[in-house]
Amino acid sequence: MTYTLAQISRIVQGGLKGNPDAVITDIAEIQNAKKGELSFLSNPKYTKFLETTGAEAILVPKDFKGEFKNLILVENPNYAFSLLIAKFRPRIPLPKPQIDPAASIAKTATVGKDIYIGPNVIIDDHVVIGDKTVLFGNIYIGKESTIGSAAVIYSNVSIYHRCQIGNDVIIHSGVVIGSDGYGFVRTEDGISKIPQEGGVVISDDVEIGANCAIDRGTLGNTVIGKGTKLDNFIQVAHNVKIGQYCFIAAQSGIAGSTQIADGVTIAGQVGIAGHLKVGKGAIIAAQSGISKDVPPGAIMFGYPAQEQSKARREIGNIRSIPDIKERLKIIARELEQLKQGK
Amino acid sequence: MTYTLAQISRIVQGGLKGNPDAVITDIAEIQNAKKGELSFLSNPKYTKFLETTGAEAILVPKDFKGEFKNLILVENPNYAFSLLIAKFRPRIPLPKPQIDPAASIAKTATVGKDIYIGPNVIIDDHVVIGDKTVLFGNIYIGKESTIGSAAVIYSNVSIYHRCQIGNDVIIHSGVVIGSDGYGFVRTEDGISKIPQEGGVVISDDVEIGANCAIDRGTLGNTVIGKGTKLDNFIQVAHNVKIGQYCFIAAQSGIAGSTQIADGVTIAGQVGIAGHLKVGKGAIIAAQSGISKDVPPGAIMFGYPAQEQSKARREIGNIRSIPDIKERLKIIARELEQLKQGK
Amino acid sequence: MTYTLAQISRIVQGGLKGNPDAVITDIAEIQNAKKGELSFLSNPKYTKFLETTGAEAILVPKDFKGEFKNLILVENPNYAFSLLIAKFRPRIPLPKPQIDPAASIAKTATVGKDIYIGPNVIIDDHVVIGDKTVLFGNIYIGKESTIGSAAVIYSNVSIYHRCQIGNDVIIHSGVVIGSDGYGFVRTEDGISKIPQEGGVVISDDVEIGANCAIDRGTLGNTVIGKGTKLDNFIQVAHNVKIGQYCFIAAQSGIAGSTQIADGVTIAGQVGIAGHLKVGKGAIIAAQSGISKDVPPGAIMFGYPAQEQSKARREIGNIRSIPDIKERLKIIARELEQLKQGK
Repeated sequence: MTYTLAQISRIVQGGLKGNPDAVITDIAEIQNAKKGELSFLSNPKYTKFLETTGAEAILVPKDFKGEFKNLILVENPNYAFSLLIAKFRPRIPLPKPQIDPAASIAKTATVGKDIYIGPNVIIDDHVVIGDKTVLFGNIYIGKESTIGSAAVIYSNVSIYHRCQIGNDVIIHSGVVIGSDGYGFVRTEDGISKIPQEGGVVISDDVEIGANCAIDRGTLGNTVIGKGTKLDNFIQVAHNVKIGQYCFIAAQSGIAGSTQIADGVTIAGQVGIAGHLKVGKGAIIAAQSGISKDVPPGAIMFGYPAQEQSKARREIGNIRSIPDIKERLKIIARELEQLKQGK
Repeated sequence: MTYTLAQISRIVQGGLKGNPDAVITDIAEIQNAKKGELSFLSNPKYTKFLETTGAEAILVPKDFKGEFKNLILVENPNYAFSLLIAKFRPRIPLPKPQIDPAASIAKTATVGKDIYIGPNVIIDDHVVIGDKTVLFGNIYIGKESTIGSAAVIYSNVSIYHRCQIGNDVIIHSGVVIGSDGYGFVRTEDGISKIPQEGGVVISDDVEIGANCAIDRGTLGNTVIGKGTKLDNFIQVAHNVKIGQYCFIAAQSGIAGSTQIADGVTIAGQVGIAGHLKVGKGAIIAAQSGISKDVPPGAIMFGYPAQEQSKARREIGNIRSIPDIKERLKIIARELEQLKQGK
Repeated sequence: MTYTLAQISRIVQGGLKGNPDAVITDIAEIQNAKKGELSFLSNPKYTKFLETTGAEAILVPKDFKGEFKNLILVENPNYAFSLLIAKFRPRIPLPKPQIDPAASIAKTATVGKDIYIGPNVIIDDHVVIGDKTVLFGNIYIGKESTIGSAAVIYSNVSIYHRCQIGNDVIIHSGVVIGSDGYGFVRTEDGISKIPQEGGVVISDDVEIGANCAIDRGTLGNTVIGKGTKLDNFIQVAHNVKIGQYCFIAAQSGIAGSTQIADGVTIAGQVGIAGHLKVGKGAIIAAQSGISKDVPPGAIMFGYPAQEQSKARREIGNIRSIPDIKERLKIIARELEQLKQGK
């Protein structure tokens, strides 16, 4: 596929500065782009590559100040570029509707139209699956669980009984949904298990990265809200409620019964203790340890986490200790001189 | 199912304060409980909900001081409530004994009585499985491994060769047991692998959360002691020995050859370095990094971890730096005045 | 199998100090070794066991100063011992070439010679697999992916479409390769997914521990260089490039587009932010949080990480705060006395 720059600017609804007839043959990252290729610039770290890139043209933000032979100015270069990925790199299509003879589907299960079920998929009693859903191989779906329509579930996913998966949900390989919450009581003669009889609700448009684990609730449900995106290795403990359109980056964990409001951004390797509330739109920096409620809109950082500005000041304070010691030494010397002088 | 409060008090062996004829139709968390529902109170954070809950009755500790229309006083409200979950929310029963025709069972394997083996389970040569054990679908069990009786292993679990799983063990989906320990030697021309020829021993009554990984020993076994409970994503490296009745919360990792004594509690996202000893009953706070032996009964916190009281004091010290600076300024000023005065 | 000490010294090409006719019947860790058993000593922490071990002989480094009845002196005791593990504890051989009838292999796939494909393995269209490769059960390999020769892939591994796995690669159970990178853009009406249409390249001689996740690139490939060894639970985000012969210990994560040079050592639970460069031979201590480029050969530690020597000094500084306060008190007192004295 090739496009002229004029065509590209129409696809991304951007303003064109340069040659509208320039021919674009592919897309590439700015540091790697060669003649004929279109790139984008959104992270300022990459601005330096403007000097060296072989790119034919670059997508930039509307307020871009730099110079380049061919520019397309857009609201969001990242988003505009993502539209072009679909044009230049058509994905391998999802498998066509078919039910593999090596799948094990209970007679009491209800399966929608135009569905793909791969080899060795196990669908247990009373499961309901919506239309156009794709289930890759080696998946297990437990009793009475429901899957919406147009969902895509990759290989080796385990969904326990009584879980509800919404429409257009994407679940990557190795994910476990509905495993028992970690509930135990120490007793005189050992440890007693607290039954975990709630379920899990995964709302529409959620994406769950590889090897995540989302435990079932004790009585009620563990819930992930509409459009929320989980990276890989996320731990979601029992009874957690996550709001809509949140980002949670890899290897973060949320302990039992914590509530995350809408639009929260959690970076990688963050830990959030149990029974807390994280307010709407809060941002939590990587590796932070959250041990208290987080107010809406707060930016948190550190272990234990504080408001980022406070945490930063604290680091500055620590780094000023050598200076404090130096000043102490000077004062002590002057004091000594004063005493001697008397 | 409905019970009178008098019946409930007998089930949980608790004292009743209120109306013995009150009818309980369900159970619920205190913040959600409605008329007719019974709840419990054990975490003091939730005491505030006493004012707003619609609950008919509440399980409280024996020394509870507050007021409510109907109370049942018990040693451990958590434990008492867990007994009631089983009454009000009977779980979906485990699958009935059956061997699915889509399982692949080696002729040399020995399988007990009253066993359930789901579709696509692979049981390799010389495996032995005890009576009443349940193996959900898509499980792999390697050569010469043994599984005890009444164990429950969920879907997509991988157990390598020569691992021993005890009685009444529960293993959640995505768990890997017996993968090679991480043993390598840098050599002149690259990296050489150290063979990992020990095994893994999972003792009776252990529960292992979703997506854990427990590596096999190099020569001897990696061992998890009786009744220990692992949350999700726990990393147990080669040659680790974990004692009895420990708790290990999600995303914690224990490096090679470390020994954890009985009754230890490890919170989430903790890292414990290799070749260490953690003493009996020690408690390690979330996200701590343990780089030295931990004495019995110690409470550890921080990165690098210290005794919690020390770590807390240290945080207090850091937060006092602005005050130190302020005092330094005042002293410097006074000193200057003194010098001037001379 | 038994060997004389003279035979052992020839196998490991070491110098013998002691009785060449001593008979070695097995190998064991120094703290557990009994009569007739050979052990090794490389970690100085274990030197104390020289006093108590029942070992017949011990492998030690050439410059070893201690005394013991029978010693074999070698360059690298760890490596020498690893050669003996293979002699005394022959591993269960890999399964013999065979294609299980319960595997699902696409007609368009190309499968090499002397290959083992276990039950329920799914091999999708246009996959190519080299000679002598072993695929345990319940594996999924997506369209157009290639696997080299003499690779070993354990059960329940998921490899998405268009991934390239080299020769002699070992992939442990539960690993996911080629899942979508975590790429999204917030838009006015929610969150939009950025297509992830690159692939993954796993070079020759790489080993990947249990339950790792390696995301596919956005346009280009996520790459792991020759001979690099990943422990369990490693997160490798989209577009990451890892060099040759690196070590990455358990539960570490590398965010998108970061480049790791050759010979880097990353300890456990480390987090490395996106779009960074980690220089050749750098070492990153456990639980560190890397937020800036790391120069070649640097040793980094802390959260946020600094050069280890600096981070250590900083800890020393923090621990000197009580002393600073004490000195402040003394100075204030002396100052007061001076003022009074005037």
